Order: sequence, then structure tokens, then C-alpha cells
Amino acid sequence: MRKIILIAAFLLALSVCAVGQRHALVFQSDFGLRDGAVGAMKGVAFAVSAELAIFDITHDIPPYNIWEASYRLNQAAPYWPPGTVFVSIVDPGVGSDRRSVVVKTRSGHFVVTPDNGTLTHIAETLGIDQVREIDEARNRLQNSSQSYTFHGRDVYAYTGARLASGAISFEQVGPLHHGDVVQLSYQKPVFRNGEAAGGIPVLDVQYGNVWTNIDKTTFSKLGASTGDWINVRIFNGKQLVYEGRVPYVQTFAAVDDGKELGYLNSLLNFSLGVNMGSFAERYKVSSGAEWSVVLRKDVR
Amino acid sequence: MRKIILIAAFLLALSVCAVGQRHALVFQSDFGLRDGAVGAMKGVAFAVSAELAIFDITHDIPPYNIWEASYRLNQAAPYWPPGTVFVSIVDPGVGSDRRSVVVKTRSGHFVVTPDNGTLTHIAETLGIDQVREIDEARNRLQNSSQSYTFHGRDVYAYTGARLASGAISFEQVGPLHHGDVVQLSYQKPVFRNGEAAGGIPVLDVQYGNVWTNIDKTTFSKLGASTGDWINVRIFNGKQLVYEGRVPYVQTFAAVDDGKELGYLNSLLNFSLGVNMGSFAERYKVSSGAEWSVVLRKDVR
Amino acid sequence: MRKIILIAAFLLALSVCAVGQRHALVFQSDFGLRDGAVGAMKGVAFAVSAELAIFDITHDIPPYNIWEASYRLNQAAPYWPPGTVFVSIVDPGVGSDRRSVVVKTRSGHFVVTPDNGTLTHIAETLGIDQVREIDEARNRLQNSSQSYTFHGRDVYAYTGARLASGAISFEQVGPLHHGDVVQLSYQKPVFRNGEAAGGIPVLDVQYGNVWTNIDKTTFSKLGASTGDWINVRIFNGKQLVYEGRVPYVQTFAAVDDGKELGYLNSLLNFSLGVNMGSFAERYKVSSGAEWSVVLRKDVR
Repeated sequence: MRKIILIAAFLLALSVCAVGQRHALVFQSDFGLRDGAVGAMKGVAFAVSAELAIFDITHDIPPYNIWEASYRLNQAAPYWPPGTVFVSIVDPGVGSDRRSVVVKTRSGHFVVTPDNGTLTHIAETLGIDQVREIDEARNRLQNSSQSYTFHGRDVYAYTGARLASGAISFEQVGPLHHGDVVQLSYQKPVFRNGEAAGGIPVLDVQYGNVWTNIDKTTFSKLGASTGDWINVRIFNGKQLVYEGRVPYVQTFAAVDDGKELGYLNSLLNFSLGVNMGSFAERYKVSSGAEWSVVLRKDVR
Repeated sequence: MRKIILIAAFLLALSVCAVGQRHALVFQSDFGLRDGAVGAMKGVAFAVSAELAIFDITHDIPPYNIWEASYRLNQAAPYWPPGTVFVSIVDPGVGSDRRSVVVKTRSGHFVVTPDNGTLTHIAETLGIDQVREIDEARNRLQNSSQSYTFHGRDVYAYTGARLASGAISFEQVGPLHHGDVVQLSYQKPVFRNGEAAGGIPVLDVQYGNVWTNIDKTTFSKLGASTGDWINVRIFNGKQLVYEGRVPYVQTFAAVDDGKELGYLNSLLNFSLGVNMGSFAERYKVSSGAEWSVVLRKDVR
Repeated sequence: MRKIILIAAFLLALSVCAVGQRHALVFQSDFGLRDGAVGAMKGVAFAVSAELAIFDITHDIPPYNIWEASYRLNQAAPYWPPGTVFVSIVDPGVGSDRRSVVVKTRSGHFVVTPDNGTLTHIAETLGIDQVREIDEARNRLQNSSQSYTFHGRDVYAYTGARLASGAISFEQVGPLHHGDVVQLSYQKPVFRNGEAAGGIPVLDVQYGNVWTNIDKTTFSKLGASTGDWINVRIFNGKQLVYEGRVPYVQTFAAVDDGKELGYLNSLLNFSLGVNMGSFAERYKVSSGAEWSVVLRKDVR
């Protein structure tokens, strides 16, 4: 009997501490960090539970850029453990009839977001298990019903925090949505006629590297080994912006300062860089749906 | 007897874990995030207690801009639970005889700050319960007495962390200050002659929306309903900068891309925006004491 | 006996909570915060242990600027408690044969970093106790072996998190390295012929103050007291960029707005500022190895 009491006390203490079980709540948005918006969202989350582990991917998504939100989410999410709750708010349609959802991925991650295309990449990489529409009658910050333009604070941060802390279950988010999530269309990587082609989804903004979406599998069909040269053409629409050859290497340090190179980036997609310089700036290359890249193994 | 021991052990374990009780320490400053200043402050706080939950509102308050510090603090603070300790450091008078204080608001929040006007908005919205002057003889980082220019690290972060962690009580901050806190003067919103008038305290910097301080109550005296048109005049001093009419709507999506609109922002103040664009940029509108706005319901 | 069991249960509960013992993991890098790189690193760290206290110094080190990484690390690290694990990633040589290390300082701090000069300042101020080379066979994120360009995520964040959480001991990082760490050379402060001379390691970027490396001890040899005037010459290489006199004061508020001043900064190094203005911008002063400053007590 004493042992039972002891064990019960121990388990109770543990469950209150609950330190081994806590889930992360991870924000990203296009709000920037110059004002109080992100601080208000985190206050809402902390008020839900003082035990939440709260983090950020970035709040510097270019305003209204849903495509980049989708890309950045996918760049970071796979590195977080299952159970992590992401709250992504790039929401040009706030207050319109766009759907507010929480998705559970096949990998066990959760994403709270307007269903406006933000889930495009995640749907392909982690896969969508279930989609629930947020029932705002139950999942909305108290006394916020007069505010129509800050769902990030009033609905998404609040719901994400309640889900991450266990205050609500995934089922309590709201009813199942049986259709697909909204997907942005984009050029998939392809291999044909001995060439690998794809798009430029984003730049590696800090260093000026050009990240294509030509993945390792597609790239490998070129049959290029480390040290081989790759012939590269970059187009903006129909216009040829860059044509040149770069060595395919593993690291920037494999070429001299100021020299171009091709490599597989941290997401294992083919990318173009300049050692200690900026490829994007040197050749005026940008990213987006109208940009494309064609690669061919150089056999000279 | 055994039960008493058990309960005592359990409570002790709880009090050490103390997870359910922990308070947040929330920083804002004009330090920027490009150097080691904020990192040094957080180190001081973490050294006080490894259990603190440490957050930020923003560190990108424009340098020396006390007005914006006051506004941003007020934008975020009400969303944090009572007991939260804010440390706000925009301190152009560091080292002068400006008072260093901790205020307790009527809502139970604490703010550690130089008393230089940073409390202007909080004093009106949350209300000031008590003001205590920081006794630096007791509340100053050890071995920091030769540094005169970084009170943020040596006094404010240190005192805020000790208060949030319970190492000191509010009474141990220092003696009560019986006068008012320093208030910056600004144009209050008014309704007269059928018009609502007010100032432009800040821009919604990330999106270029113009946030007035015409609150919901003052605005409602215009008798405008959703869908009505509002005649807007914006002045820089005496000079008319913008005159036009905008629909009063709930959400940006209620108008076409590129169209102007009026709405109640996330603080329920009347604001002006352009769907998917920047009102401030389009009409060269900025914020500050010399800017004013006059609204009239358009009856055409 | 019962008491022993009780105490054991209590200690076990405590050890699981382990709240009083947790160590901070503190990141800095040149990655910027506009993409998902920092978010991916933190995900790796959180997956190692959900109990880690994770912080940042800055991620806005100018790209590839090892010197500034070294300076910023030294600006913040001494304010964190012993046991703190810093992960610093400014790594232009990623993938080359530069050594990946964890150093233990004499003060009991740990730094995980490429050994490329990032430890220059820390080695002088906190001192190096031991250097261990990271054994990547054991200390590398699973399934990351095909990625060659993001050691920050795959090796440094992972190893730092495991060290901070106690998953590995310092000894388990890898073998001892018996040589020195890589040091960048720079002009040390000197006093000769009645003049104090030194370099300009960094600017105080947010406010435009010019921070020299003339420390309090060297400066004091001028025999200047508060209120005395200091004759200042600033050189870019051989070229005289600024010559003038400033009062030596403790605080910015000691001079009128717009006036120059000399003071000891938060690291107790002699610095130059303009009250409510920017010294660096006014006189086109920058920082780096080619900049130097000479001070003489003005005796007029």
C-alpha cells in the first residue's frame, strides 16, 4: 500500500513536471520583428501554458508570399520531432472565406495555417494524414471576436498552443475536411534528352546562392561525378540569363575564392554558388515561377 | 504521519520544479540583433535562473524612439498573463539622473524600464498600481559598477530576472515612488462636429498600413456600418497630404487587390490600408506627433 | 527505511525534472533569420532534448566574417553561467579540412565551432582549458552524411545539444587536440610616448559608436579624469580620417545632443560617440584590421 502511494506521488510529480513530454510550438510568419505582433502571439501562447517550448523559423517571409512560406516550412519542419506544432501565418486572405486548418502529417507533425497553399511542399515531402478545419466557436481567444485582421494571434497561435500543450486533442480542433489542401502549381524537376531541368524555388538569400528544385535523384541521371563539369543554362521566361559551366563539387572550399560551383545543398537539391561571393548578384538571377534551369553534363 | 511526509515530499518536489508557476521575462529594446548586446542581457537573466521563460517583443525599436517603445509595449503586453515581467530598454538618457523603475500595473504585469515616457500607453490601458525606484545598491549585477552605459544588462535585465524568478519580491526592488510616471503628450482621439479626429502613432511597418489612434468607441460615433464609405483627410502639420474616401470593411479581402480600405486593426483602432499594397508608401504618409487624421462619414 | 524510500522517490522525481541543473545552448551564425536554416538547427537540438534552454546571440554576423564572430562571442559569453554551450557557425571553409572542435574554456564554458579564428578573443579573455576535435563518426545527425554544406545543422547543433543535455560528456566529443586554436592577428592596444593606440575591432552598429580595443588599463595611463579632453586621431591605413578632441565622460547624457564624446563602453574599452547621433556616419569611420586610433590627453 505504501508503495502504491509512493508510486502515485512520484507519477503525479512527474506528470506535473511533464518535462520529458513537452512539444514544441514553432512559429513562422510574414509579420517581421519590428513591431509587437509576434510578441502578442507568443503572449497568447504562453498564457495557454507556461510550459510550452516556443520557437521560430522566421518572421521575415516576404509579405504575402505564400510560396516562400511553404518552402521555408518544408526546409525546417522535417528536423523537428513528431508532435511538434507549427503555426504558419502568411495570410493575405485573412477574414475572407479561406479555410483555417490544422493538418497532421504522415510523419506526426502538426501545422496550423490558413489553407492557401502554405502546405504545398509539406504535402509532398511529409505527406498529409488528416486535415481538420478549425472550429472558431470553440478555438478562439476569448474577447477577440471584434478583431477581424489578426487571426494569427486570435485563432492560430491560440489553437496551436492549446494543441501543443495538450489542452485540446487534434480531434477537438474541429471537423475533418475530406478534400485536398490547396496546392500551388510549380515546375517539377524532370530528366529528358540527357538534360535535367527544374525551377528556382528560392534563393539562399543570405549568401546569394541559387537553389534549384532539381533533386539528387534527377541530378544523378546526368551521370556526373564529383569534379565533372556541368553546363548550366538559366532562363527568365524564354530569356537566357546565364549560360556557363561549373564544376560539380561537394564544398565551396573545393574552388578558389570568386569561382562558380555547383553542389547539392542542405536539402540535397542542385544549387549554384560562388565561393565567398554571390552567384545571384553576379548574374542577376532571382527566384519564382518564371525562372528555370537546364543542366547537361559537360563532356569537353 | 506517513501521509504528511508524503505530501510534504510531493509539495517540495513541485516547488522545486515549479513548472506550473513560472513567469515570463519579456525583453524589448532599440539594440538591434546584429551584435552581442541582447545575448549578454539574456546571459545575465539565465545566470539568475535557468528556469526562466525568456522572450522578446522586438529589439528593432528605432534608436532612441521612446514613443515607439511605449506603443509596442502596449501592443503586446495585454496578451501576456499577469505576473509577466517586461524589460523595456530604450534609454537615451542612460547614466543621467532619469529614474530607473519597476511598475506594477493594475492588471498585475510588471515593467522594468527607465522612466522616460516608455510607460505612456501602458499607464492609460493597464493602469499603474505602484511604482518602485530600483535600488542599485542591491539590484545590480556584481562587478558591473565601472560600466555606465549598459544599464540594460547590468541593472534592468538583472532586476527583471530576479523579480520574475522570485529571487526578490516587488517590495525588494526599492522604495515606492509616489509621483506620476513620465508621460509623453500626444493628440487624443476626439469626436466633434460630426467628425472623428486623431493621430498616427505608428505605421504597421511590415505592410504599410496607417494605424490611427481613433478607437472603436470614437469611430462608432460616426454611425458608419460595414460597407459605408468614409471620407478621410490626413495632415502633416497644417498640410493636407491625402484626401479621399475608403470603404469601411472588416477585412482586406473585402476589396480588390490594389484598392484602399478602412478597417479596425488588431488593437481595434481605425486604420487605412491597401489590399496587397502599401497605403503609407502610395500616399507618402508617415507617423508621429505632427501627423493627424480626420474622418467623416461619406453620405453621397 | 520508509524515509529512505521517500527520499529516493523524491530525488528520482527531481532528477527527471532536473530543472535546477539545465544548461543553455546558445547559437550564433552568419545565416541571417530570413530562411529556415536556424529553424532547422533548433529542430535538431530540440529533438536531442526537449528540456534544453535554447538561445541566440545573433545570426546577423556579416557573411563569412570570422573576426566579427569572434568579437560577438566574446561580447556575450562571459555573461552566461559556466556550463553554457555556445555553437558558433561562421564557416566559409565548410567541407574543407578545417578542424571542427569543442573547446572548454578556463571559465567552464564550451564552444562548438569550426577552428578558423572564431576563438581568437575567447582564448585571450576566458582562456582555453582543453580542445577536442569532433569525432563525426559518432557525433553527426543520423542520415545526414550526404549533406556536405550544412555542418551547422548536421554536426555542430547536434553535438552542442548532446553536450548541453548531458547525452554525451565532453570527453565523448572526440580526441584531445594538443596544439593551439587558430588565432587571427590584430593590433593590440599599446601605450608609448604618452599616447594610447589601438584598433577598431567593430562598430557599435545600431548607434554608430566607434569601439576601439584600447582597454581601461591602457587608457588609464593617459592620466585622464572624467571631464578631461582627449585628442583623437583615427587612421585608415596611413590616411588620417579624423582628428579632433572629445571630452572623456561617463555617459552620453553628459554632453548636449549632437556633440561628440569619449567613454568606456560596456566592455570597458575606450569608444567614441555622438549623443543622439552617429560618430561613424558623421566621420565615415569603419572597422577592421586597417583602422587604428591614437589618443593623447589634451592639455590646452
